[in-house]
Amino acid sequence: MFNKILIANRGEIALRVLRACKELGIRTVAVHSTADADAMHVRLADESVCIGPPPARDSYLNIPQLVAACEITGAEAVHPGYGFLSENARFAEIVEAHGIRFIGPSAEHIRIMGDKIEAKRTAQRLGIPVVPGSDGAVETEAAALKFASEIGYPVLIKASAGGGGRGMKIARSAEDLPEAYATARGESKAAFGDDAVYMEKLLLTPRHIEIQVLGDGKGGAIHLGERDCSLQRRHQKIWEEAGSPALNAGDRDRIGAICAKAVAGLGYAGAGTIEFLYENGEFFFIEMNTRLQVEHPITEAITDIDIVNEQIRVAYGSGLSVGQGDIEFKGHAIECRINAENPATFVPSPGKITYYHPPGGLGVRVDSGVYQGYKIPPYYDSLIGKLIVHGRDRVECLMRLRRCLDEFVVGGIETTIPLFRRLIDNQDIANGVYDIHWLERFLEAEPTGA
Amino acid sequence: MFNKILIANRGEIALRVLRACKELGIRTVAVHSTADADAMHVRLADESVCIGPPPARDSYLNIPQLVAACEITGAEAVHPGYGFLSENARFAEIVEAHGIRFIGPSAEHIRIMGDKIEAKRTAQRLGIPVVPGSDGAVETEAAALKFASEIGYPVLIKASAGGGGRGMKIARSAEDLPEAYATARGESKAAFGDDAVYMEKLLLTPRHIEIQVLGDGKGGAIHLGERDCSLQRRHQKIWEEAGSPALNAGDRDRIGAICAKAVAGLGYAGAGTIEFLYENGEFFFIEMNTRLQVEHPITEAITDIDIVNEQIRVAYGSGLSVGQGDIEFKGHAIECRINAENPATFVPSPGKITYYHPPGGLGVRVDSGVYQGYKIPPYYDSLIGKLIVHGRDRVECLMRLRRCLDEFVVGGIETTIPLFRRLIDNQDIANGVYDIHWLERFLEAEPTGA
Repeated sequence: MFNKILIANRGEIALRVLRACKELGIRTVAVHSTADADAMHVRLADESVCIGPPPARDSYLNIPQLVAACEITGAEAVHPGYGFLSENARFAEIVEAHGIRFIGPSAEHIRIMGDKIEAKRTAQRLGIPVVPGSDGAVETEAAALKFASEIGYPVLIKASAGGGGRGMKIARSAEDLPEAYATARGESKAAFGDDAVYMEKLLLTPRHIEIQVLGDGKGGAIHLGERDCSLQRRHQKIWEEAGSPALNAGDRDRIGAICAKAVAGLGYAGAGTIEFLYENGEFFFIEMNTRLQVEHPITEAITDIDIVNEQIRVAYGSGLSVGQGDIEFKGHAIECRINAENPATFVPSPGKITYYHPPGGLGVRVDSGVYQGYKIPPYYDSLIGKLIVHGRDRVECLMRLRRCLDEFVVGGIETTIPLFRRLIDNQDIANGVYDIHWLERFLEAEPTGA
Repeated sequence: MFNKILIANRGEIALRVLRACKELGIRTVAVHSTADADAMHVRLADESVCIGPPPARDSYLNIPQLVAACEITGAEAVHPGYGFLSENARFAEIVEAHGIRFIGPSAEHIRIMGDKIEAKRTAQRLGIPVVPGSDGAVETEAAALKFASEIGYPVLIKASAGGGGRGMKIARSAEDLPEAYATARGESKAAFGDDAVYMEKLLLTPRHIEIQVLGDGKGGAIHLGERDCSLQRRHQKIWEEAGSPALNAGDRDRIGAICAKAVAGLGYAGAGTIEFLYENGEFFFIEMNTRLQVEHPITEAITDIDIVNEQIRVAYGSGLSVGQGDIEFKGHAIECRINAENPATFVPSPGKITYYHPPGGLGVRVDSGVYQGYKIPPYYDSLIGKLIVHGRDRVECLMRLRRCLDEFVVGGIETTIPLFRRLIDNQDIANGVYDIHWLERFLEAEPTGA
């Protein structure tokens, strides 16, 4: 096994990876910005290297600094976590060119899945169901009008190079289309330096369902079932469930098998997530994330598989520790993302945590990089912890989540905990009946809960 | 289901029961002494009642006060936790006589198992293997000599009414016996007001292995496998494992089936633990605890059964939620009892907790009734928390435990965490090769680890 791994990230995910390394007997190197010198991942690592000041582009995104940190410390491999450089194909290439193992898929696979058109084409080729849409970029307004009339309105126009909603426009009718098309191209050009756009059928009330896959890099792959991440605000997930309240075991096995087969066909290495919109019993591919996902712990809860451990094993060449036949799905798990934000306005709330007491007891996991006395810097995303609860069924899981939210105390800053207390009292949430727009509607109707 | 339960206990176990109640939607009543007004179980309960000053006999052991607290608050049932009144048959009777349900077995079963001679006789009748020993009290020195020569030296002479080592003497030969016999009788008389003693074969290097059972009170019962609690100091367990490193699945099924059948035969209701000494592949009954055990979470970890939930279900009359066929044993779990004590001298260390940060992440459970700023009163036992780790196998579990011990921070008081850090580095512990005397030998040889 590796002797030493450098963790090219910060916050709770750096700690998550560090824990997996410690449990494998691997020494750890933390990297940190000058703003993160007191962070927990730094305190718990065997060694740490300061790689520059905030913002991230001068430290966590600084590839030469990261490679230098590996060389100085003799790290044999790099775990990128999520965000930052985790889906940067060039980073994976440069790291490997220096004889350091990148813990993740090949640069080629990162690159394919990072290009939305190429990703969709690849998914389609591998037998993954996709949203009816244009085969590549739609280059003229006339072509856009023609294609939209074929697949039917509403349609979505999206930047080929995009993500996060920028360069994305809806056309509800032929009258809407010219303006939406022109705006999408203009925004794409401005945001990504590339005005190529593609089009697809817009689903009105879909759920976001994603399949966790693990590939051994040698043509073997398994799936670990689905996560339902429909509760989103501005495309940011805040509450995730495994399994989905909308799916039965048959659906799971069917789409899971398709994904595992596709990933095996790619020769994919490590953890990945294939994201779908789900409506009326049908799955439509959105994208594949070629990295660890924030919400991976709910899958770990229902499968007892340590996903980070498997990533490290595969990167080392040991293959996966389990086969599909070993995977059992047990119970139900929910994750709430605790952000340092005002729970009604979502304005970030950095600052000193004056009191911190996480919940405990049966079926509870807290992944957090903060501690009492820690000062949350203003430079990074506001996720300060994840509360993951597991129960024998969804009802037990919800009851457990409620009591955990009551126990969780964070002082000195604002957090989204009160929002989750409101959600858990909502009848739609209790019934598991929500789509990807539900949370925005809820927040619009009842912004403060008061 | 019950509307309201009174929890007749304090500390982490009061919190454990409170959590189970909340997860069932049951309102909770905490009771507390004047010394415990700031305790976490009080803060998190729906209602609380002060039942008197320390020491425990004036509050937590004060039956009239507890019954009054039930009546004032309208509690329909009482959960006794462990210790205090949990194995007091009279308390169970009085509570029930007031129309309040006692969450535990019948007073009769508590009484039988509380009398060591009666317990052993009952176990034997129910097919549970027992240590070769006297059938009842040994009333004369001559009878003691005769019996010892039959079962072979060394023999143990024990107070019939005793517990905790008082009134217990070893005779290694016929020469030793007269003095040991006389001393045991004298100590028994002094400690328990009863000089009846019984004798049994002394096992030299046994392990302590116990079977968790659950009875539905109607003749149905299941077992949840074994716990190995051999690591003890002065008969106090400090580290427990499920399963035992010494047992295989066949041993577990065999002794488990015997225990489940015995408990079913009794018509036992709720949770119980049948304790054995185990040597050379043989089990010898010690006693049955008719209550929840401190170390129950490791069984919950490997079975996914919520034992307190089952206790409450059975007390309400809903029966058990599972049958033996539903029970699967998955992975390995270890519990460390974190005591507020000097880790070398074991002198209690009450006082203010100035910093508290429990470990988190995958496979980790912390059950604790303390928080930062809490002042541990000097009147009660020194258990402040339990660290429970679960892994896919014992090796993973030990690695996880090690990293959790490194993460656990408790400031302002001394704790036994450093002792566990020493244990986890020990080769015997790594190999799982230890008996009930191992820890005492270890502490004698290396009292401080320095």
